[in-house]
Amino acid sequence: MRILIANVNTTASMTDAIAAQARRVAAPGTEIVALTPAFGAESVEGNYESYVAAVAVMETIRAYEGEYDAIIQAGYGEHGREGLQELFDVPVVDITEAAAASAMFVGHKYSVVTTLDRAVPLIEDRLLLAGLDRRCASVRASGLAVLDLERDPDAAIERIVEQAVAAVEEDRAEAICLGCGGMSGLTQRVIERTGVPVIDGVAAAVCLAEGLVRQGLSTSKSRTYAPPRPKQFKNWPPRS
Amino acid sequence: MRILIANVNTTASMTDAIAAQARRVAAPGTEIVALTPAFGAESVEGNYESYVAAVAVMETIRAYEGEYDAIIQAGYGEHGREGLQELFDVPVVDITEAAAASAMFVGHKYSVVTTLDRAVPLIEDRLLLAGLDRRCASVRASGLAVLDLERDPDAAIERIVEQAVAAVEEDRAEAICLGCGGMSGLTQRVIERTGVPVIDGVAAAVCLAEGLVRQGLSTSKSRTYAPPRPKQFKNWPPRS
Amino acid sequence: MRILIANVNTTASMTDAIAAQARRVAAPGTEIVALTPAFGAESVEGNYESYVAAVAVMETIRAYEGEYDAIIQAGYGEHGREGLQELFDVPVVDITEAAAASAMFVGHKYSVVTTLDRAVPLIEDRLLLAGLDRRCASVRASGLAVLDLERDPDAAIERIVEQAVAAVEEDRAEAICLGCGGMSGLTQRVIERTGVPVIDGVAAAVCLAEGLVRQGLSTSKSRTYAPPRPKQFKNWPPRS
Amino acid sequence: MRILIANVNTTASMTDAIAAQARRVAAPGTEIVALTPAFGAESVEGNYESYVAAVAVMETIRAYEGEYDAIIQAGYGEHGREGLQELFDVPVVDITEAAAASAMFVGHKYSVVTTLDRAVPLIEDRLLLAGLDRRCASVRASGLAVLDLERDPDAAIERIVEQAVAAVEEDRAEAICLGCGGMSGLTQRVIERTGVPVIDGVAAAVCLAEGLVRQGLSTSKSRTYAPPRPKQFKNWPPRS
Amino acid sequence: MRILIANVNTTASMTDAIAAQARRVAAPGTEIVALTPAFGAESVEGNYESYVAAVAVMETIRAYEGEYDAIIQAGYGEHGREGLQELFDVPVVDITEAAAASAMFVGHKYSVVTTLDRAVPLIEDRLLLAGLDRRCASVRASGLAVLDLERDPDAAIERIVEQAVAAVEEDRAEAICLGCGGMSGLTQRVIERTGVPVIDGVAAAVCLAEGLVRQGLSTSKSRTYAPPRPKQFKNWPPRS
Amino acid sequence: MRILIANVNTTASMTDAIAAQARRVAAPGTEIVALTPAFGAESVEGNYESYVAAVAVMETIRAYEGEYDAIIQAGYGEHGREGLQELFDVPVVDITEAAAASAMFVGHKYSVVTTLDRAVPLIEDRLLLAGLDRRCASVRASGLAVLDLERDPDAAIERIVEQAVAAVEEDRAEAICLGCGGMSGLTQRVIERTGVPVIDGVAAAVCLAEGLVRQGLSTSKSRTYAPPRPKQFKNWPPRS
Repeated sequence: MRILIANVNTTASMTDAIAAQARRVAAPGTEIVALTPAFGAESVEGNYESYVAAVAVMETIRAYEGEYDAIIQAGYGEHGREGLQELFDVPVVDITEAAAASAMFVGHKYSVVTTLDRAVPLIEDRLLLAGLDRRCASVRASGLAVLDLERDPDAAIERIVEQAVAAVEEDRAEAICLGCGGMSGLTQRVIERTGVPVIDGVAAAVCLAEGLVRQGLSTSKSRTYAPPRPKQFKNWPPRS
Repeated sequence: MRILIANVNTTASMTDAIAAQARRVAAPGTEIVALTPAFGAESVEGNYESYVAAVAVMETIRAYEGEYDAIIQAGYGEHGREGLQELFDVPVVDITEAAAASAMFVGHKYSVVTTLDRAVPLIEDRLLLAGLDRRCASVRASGLAVLDLERDPDAAIERIVEQAVAAVEEDRAEAICLGCGGMSGLTQRVIERTGVPVIDGVAAAVCLAEGLVRQGLSTSKSRTYAPPRPKQFKNWPPRS
Repeated sequence: MRILIANVNTTASMTDAIAAQARRVAAPGTEIVALTPAFGAESVEGNYESYVAAVAVMETIRAYEGEYDAIIQAGYGEHGREGLQELFDVPVVDITEAAAASAMFVGHKYSVVTTLDRAVPLIEDRLLLAGLDRRCASVRASGLAVLDLERDPDAAIERIVEQAVAAVEEDRAEAICLGCGGMSGLTQRVIERTGVPVIDGVAAAVCLAEGLVRQGLSTSKSRTYAPPRPKQFKNWPPRS
Repeated sequence: MRILIANVNTTASMTDAIAAQARRVAAPGTEIVALTPAFGAESVEGNYESYVAAVAVMETIRAYEGEYDAIIQAGYGEHGREGLQELFDVPVVDITEAAAASAMFVGHKYSVVTTLDRAVPLIEDRLLLAGLDRRCASVRASGLAVLDLERDPDAAIERIVEQAVAAVEEDRAEAICLGCGGMSGLTQRVIERTGVPVIDGVAAAVCLAEGLVRQGLSTSKSRTYAPPRPKQFKNWPPRS
Repeated sequence: MRILIANVNTTASMTDAIAAQARRVAAPGTEIVALTPAFGAESVEGNYESYVAAVAVMETIRAYEGEYDAIIQAGYGEHGREGLQELFDVPVVDITEAAAASAMFVGHKYSVVTTLDRAVPLIEDRLLLAGLDRRCASVRASGLAVLDLERDPDAAIERIVEQAVAAVEEDRAEAICLGCGGMSGLTQRVIERTGVPVIDGVAAAVCLAEGLVRQGLSTSKSRTYAPPRPKQFKNWPPRS
Repeated sequence: MRILIANVNTTASMTDAIAAQARRVAAPGTEIVALTPAFGAESVEGNYESYVAAVAVMETIRAYEGEYDAIIQAGYGEHGREGLQELFDVPVVDITEAAAASAMFVGHKYSVVTTLDRAVPLIEDRLLLAGLDRRCASVRASGLAVLDLERDPDAAIERIVEQAVAAVEEDRAEAICLGCGGMSGLTQRVIERTGVPVIDGVAAAVCLAEGLVRQGLSTSKSRTYAPPRPKQFKNWPPRS
């Protein structure tokens, strides 16, 4: 099967990292196609950038000409998943939700450790909308920007571990979701330091997407995600 | 004071209707400036169109060169309000939330009557995110498309009244929010038929925005709605 | 328009302070009539006093012989708003709810800073009943009695600021409601120290009441707030 | 032990009926003292009357000169219980809450069948405040006024049974609370017709109050229900 | 009346302590019959042991040949209550729920202080299922194993008091439930140190069970707790 | 990898059907080992049987001598999953939760269609505990006993389809979970009649379990699911 995995920012090296992480966990026979949006911000760290990313991911997948069996949106706490479900028939998996849903199978409560403080409410809101909030112990920020993770991973891991430990000890989390597409690869080191299962959203999303495809499930078109009605659009989509 | 009120679709006659409704309720001294997005769909009736509208409204207001004291997003159940709050300092009022918040002051529970069935989950989700869901008795659809409201208002009102009556009698609503920017003007007739207060989102939003400005309140910049960080954008915003 | 604003205690100087604050924010053409209850406690700081205040406010407004367009109950976390809605047709706005509803338009979460610790559960209960609790980050007490605010405002402000800062930093509030009618006037100084929007309940209530009147909305009489049925009363209301 | 049970209206025959019902279930050695408020309405069917009843019950018990071990407030969905807890040290049991708490021990979900439609939101609000709402399947109204129950019990029972059956069959209630002090005595007949346990609030409250006293429990005075602070009152309590 | 009270572990001295505590509070005329399961663990401190205890209690009561009017399950946070309700007609009272329901009548919020940290989620889950969670301020662990309570009560009480004080001061509890069957007898000393009401689950359950019996209430057989359907069992119940 | 899938009843033909369904969806290289409990009921349709099944599944897996990578509990709405997580290190997936978690990725709301009416509260309770209830539109019963499904599948499907259609049209479900291990195989026919995705719990659980294993995740041992402490057991486990 072929899974499209869309980065939400325009930094190609991030797309590559996401693709590599996805391939590590993908089953034999699963082809991972990673896409970088044609427009948008170099990193997504707030609502404005996230809304632009949402439509950028939608248009990028609309423009993709091959066939595919599932779509993964690889941004943490980002807008847009509902639009993808509406536009396409295949299953759509958001990494925020995939991580949370997986965490709930291995721990009684889970926490998310993300980058900047300002991302916390976005993630909380997405978990609330997804109905995955009841067993969320906390969403904690390491204070790192997305691109810091690429630039200095060694310093980054210390800050992330610190918050993960606090989530386990103070918030009573029994599993940790690494709350940023760019944190792929830090999983093992956080496990060593906290002793609890650590979920990488990209890996969780790949496994969930594969499973949905294998079950023959696709997005329900009965109401919320029915195909868009025929409409006149003005100046859209943007010409690149 | 000057209030920008942004239509979410590209149909100028809808913008005019919204502006007229806003002006009817605006206080003396309030100038209403109604804006039509430079790109997007002729009507917004689903997630894809709503996400495009979200960024279109943001860019339209960014491109506006005058001064203003508050922003109203005049789409019912639409995405994007958080992005506006992040981009601008002035108060931002979404008509979905304005109507619900107002309804809660005049009735113990309220219902929303909207257009198409597919809009119901979007409105429910926005009310959940806004924290205004506890006293929402129901969100009901009349089955009408947004543009039907313009084309045949007489037929439309019957369908809307029917759902409003059901909301009052079956769902125990004590106030009704008319859940579509295009329903402005039907208010009085629905009141006559249901006997309960009927809230028009545009009117509610204008009054709330004026009140926030008069109180000297502006959007908190402490966390969720902090200004976007400096970023490199690729191919954005689109050139018209 | 004329708005009645009822103090909940019998201290006339508090009524005057409330009236002054209301007039500062009222639109041109809005007349503020401030009422002091004919019976009850010199300050209201608990359930017994609050229940007496509830009926005192009701009887005071029943005894008012002029015309008016809206009623404001100017007590924080007090009982009684539902009774006013039942007795009168005009919109009734409670300052606790007005402040919370306004705060939700300018911040993702809000906190209330009130006087005594014992007031905290009362305010929490009123926000729960009003359906405005989901985005309440915390209700915090400064430890000051209502009358302390009048006697030594300079000492009071330090204690209030301290709690407001804790609400922002620890509880993640993005806006602060000053949770006592007597705190009117401290707003500006708390803004300077916390950097987040600070909502004064009296000001918020005046703006909301004006807006409801301008929209032509009045209290729904369909069920919860239907007029009292004709009844025989014994020894009530009390003769002054 | 001696239990004070306060009717919320001024109709002495209702007080007598409540007392009789209380005595039927009271343990040997429990003395039931039933009190009729010195002021207020002949029956309580809405917020205004309920708020007056709240203070009337408080003053009636304050004026009672004997000793007692517990207080029962025998009105369904009425205001005031928190004030009694604040004024007195002995356990205070509200019949709405006593019925709900008892129902939860004998059925997975329960419903309340009350008198007038307008009482429904009051009861829902009290259950929400009490934290006893999660397993409440519904609150249903028979459409009968309180005094109808006294005047024509045979006609009344049909209407009540009809709603009780609907609660069991449609709302999935597994136990029924009779939601009015005046319904005491109908219990057995509703059981026969529905086949589920039927809880009378007065009986439930007597048993709960006796149990709290036997456990040596009294109202916590640590915060919410701390004794009123010393205050100056104006024109209160009313002279009879 | 006769009440069966079932210990959940196989330690007979614990059964004796529970019986003694039950008898101290039981009304004259109430006979307490304490039962020790025929199989299971010496103490129950986790899900596996709790599930075994659940069926052990069920089989122990099924094997009891006398008559009885109510059943108490005397384990804190344990599984199994629903099974007892299904098997037997008489009221079934779980001490976790009895304590919580009683606490809610004497304080605005309550906390539970239990033994090991691992018991916390079990208790939280049972309170959630029972619909008694909204006013639970916290569940705190003293870090003591069940059998430590028997071995060194003096050391144990210090640890328990410490958590109770923290619950009152930090979590704003106004009443404390002692969250372990084996804590019976520590009640008085915790009261002295915290100043708030302390509820012993066994005492609360006895009073509640007596009250349900006196009201003539028994478990609803309409749906969830209908008697088991006739079935073939293999190798069950186990032969002792 | 090897996945143990435990039937909850002692009917071997049901185990075979579950195994067949699991193998249909299992990835190449996944070995399915289906286990029938050594003791318990021929079908599980209520709390007593479910509690016995819970310990029977635990003991059956404890007695299994081979190696394995994950455990699936193949009973709908049954007790016991927490005990398995405590006893074993590998991921444990309950089919009720697996179906719900999967449904949430393909529809905005989902419903469960189960067998007997009495199973509805059990399923609701398990979804509540699992934190998967917010987007559950309804749990509906077809009125069929578990063994009816085996005996007369043609008649059964009509009843199930009827409820599924009602869930979609009345309760607004956008996906349907078939709520009984024995419904495996009806999936396709329900899809044809309802037009929405239909999730089989066994298939969902297999895919989820495989995914968790591929991610290297195992049950968190930090608190709730820590291994049982060393204990003396009396007469347990039962000798077969």
